[in-house]
Amino acid sequence: MKIAIDAMGGDDAPQAIVTGVERFLKEDSQTQIRLFGPQAQLTELVTPSPQLTVVNTTQIVEGNDEPVAAIRQKRDSSLVRAAEDVKTGQADGLLSCGNTGAILAAGIFVIGRIKNVERPALMPTLPTSMVGKYYNMLDVGANAEAKISYLTQFAQMGSIYAADLRGIKDPVVKLLNIGSEPHKGDPLHQKAFAAISQLAGINFQGNIEPTELFQGAADVVVTDGFTGNAVLKTLEGTMKTILHLFKNSLVDGNLKTKIGALLVRGNLSNLANQFNNSRFGGAVLLGVNAPVIKGHGNSQPETVYYAIKQVKEMIEGQTVQKFKDLYQ
Amino acid sequence: MKIAIDAMGGDDAPQAIVTGVERFLKEDSQTQIRLFGPQAQLTELVTPSPQLTVVNTTQIVEGNDEPVAAIRQKRDSSLVRAAEDVKTGQADGLLSCGNTGAILAAGIFVIGRIKNVERPALMPTLPTSMVGKYYNMLDVGANAEAKISYLTQFAQMGSIYAADLRGIKDPVVKLLNIGSEPHKGDPLHQKAFAAISQLAGINFQGNIEPTELFQGAADVVVTDGFTGNAVLKTLEGTMKTILHLFKNSLVDGNLKTKIGALLVRGNLSNLANQFNNSRFGGAVLLGVNAPVIKGHGNSQPETVYYAIKQVKEMIEGQTVQKFKDLYQ
Repeated sequence: MKIAIDAMGGDDAPQAIVTGVERFLKEDSQTQIRLFGPQAQLTELVTPSPQLTVVNTTQIVEGNDEPVAAIRQKRDSSLVRAAEDVKTGQADGLLSCGNTGAILAAGIFVIGRIKNVERPALMPTLPTSMVGKYYNMLDVGANAEAKISYLTQFAQMGSIYAADLRGIKDPVVKLLNIGSEPHKGDPLHQKAFAAISQLAGINFQGNIEPTELFQGAADVVVTDGFTGNAVLKTLEGTMKTILHLFKNSLVDGNLKTKIGALLVRGNLSNLANQFNNSRFGGAVLLGVNAPVIKGHGNSQPETVYYAIKQVKEMIEGQTVQKFKDLYQ
Repeated sequence: MKIAIDAMGGDDAPQAIVTGVERFLKEDSQTQIRLFGPQAQLTELVTPSPQLTVVNTTQIVEGNDEPVAAIRQKRDSSLVRAAEDVKTGQADGLLSCGNTGAILAAGIFVIGRIKNVERPALMPTLPTSMVGKYYNMLDVGANAEAKISYLTQFAQMGSIYAADLRGIKDPVVKLLNIGSEPHKGDPLHQKAFAAISQLAGINFQGNIEPTELFQGAADVVVTDGFTGNAVLKTLEGTMKTILHLFKNSLVDGNLKTKIGALLVRGNLSNLANQFNNSRFGGAVLLGVNAPVIKGHGNSQPETVYYAIKQVKEMIEGQTVQKFKDLYQ
């Protein structure tokens, strides 16, 4: 098994990527890692290993590059070269922590969409307020537009992933909507509700409202890319703001507060850890011809490590083949 | 000036409503309050006042009633009767803390839409991470469907409200979208961006992403009712979950944690207060023929008090007349 990794994507690349790769290789004696980036820079950072190949590339897709243009123009970027490696079968899956739009474009235009999948979807694994209980939400922004048929495929692909990668029997699938009854929402969501209800083999249990996302009532949450992206960004923004404000109020407080802060510090960091997404790996681009994982832009070595494991598990589980079997 | 109040809507009605009304009347010697509900029950609760009239009604719209059916069938409910009071000119504005959908239906079907307003919008005032800095977001769910022309009117009405009621000169208007550049989002949001840019007298400053809502960059955030409702529910759910989990972790902790909790208790409640929406009044239904305010379902007397003041200010400011001048 070979995994292609873009060493140059992410806020702390390439150091965080390299450290994550090395942690992975300490535990794994089978997988080959193909690391894409400027050879001179990378060879200084990496510890040589028979499982690790550095592939020299001369360009970098930046965070603010226009995605499709970057993929077309930066043919020798670490991202495009890593994606081409997967396309040509030199590697079996791709990980990048770089520009999300460019990773989607590389997945869709270089590695390619699975035949009869209308639109690939981006799907993170997200925490609930119950320790150890997560859900997958898709699409969170691979597509700005939505059709009913996209949503039914998202339900199928999300369900297969949750069963396959998370080992959940008959994953509970819900539709993100602004009310619980079947007639709620706009016509798209009303019709998607009816269409998903008709799907064979899907344990569809109706609508879920955004207020309920933390309650662990769904294993897979289906949504259109616009709503999913807006809800995900609201979740992240709110969580970050509250924890930040609370930390600040403790640090800036009087002596009494500062002593209190020392005593509850552990609780605050436990809470932050519960919602820390590093162990959930990255967001998966479902519906393309190979496992493609987008790690968080501020990925630290631990996140990179878990994301590599996630690519490996998707390759081992032949999840992509299951999508192909379903649609072809 | 006369304000019609539904005494029976909300989790703690009628007690919380009556107490809020009485607090308001202590400070105000001009406004007439017309309080709708079962006379026998209400006269036991209220302190008689020459400014307060109890109007007897025999039915109640419940929280889980289907909104439009409830408005049609419960003609003698406190909500419908209060709305009819406004329609016939007996009162100048309406407050209810009851069933949101039913309040919207009462506003639209009983009090009536302003001519040439395509769709009324529901608009709360929301906190940012900066103390004293708020924003209005509309629509948060009066409409599940969206058209470009609805969004341009939301920009206009929201802007007039922010200038009028919050005293902001040239309120900064932004469009809620899943990216910052003008071409981001689905075709609806791309076209709405262009259309709002063309509006005279609107200080439009482009897109705002949900992660930025807490940063205070906009006075008015324009969105379609589906996205707005989903984002608002995500905000509320996330905030409630984080604060709840942190409080629980303190209460359930060891002795060290419990002592720490006592010392930081003030900080935690300050933070909760900063995001407590009671002082922001209620959500306004903009675009109907009179001020209609929907107070939060769990409104306490303080919330009711501020929401009555908000109705009064909208009546005094002749905000509805300004909408009529714009569209007629």
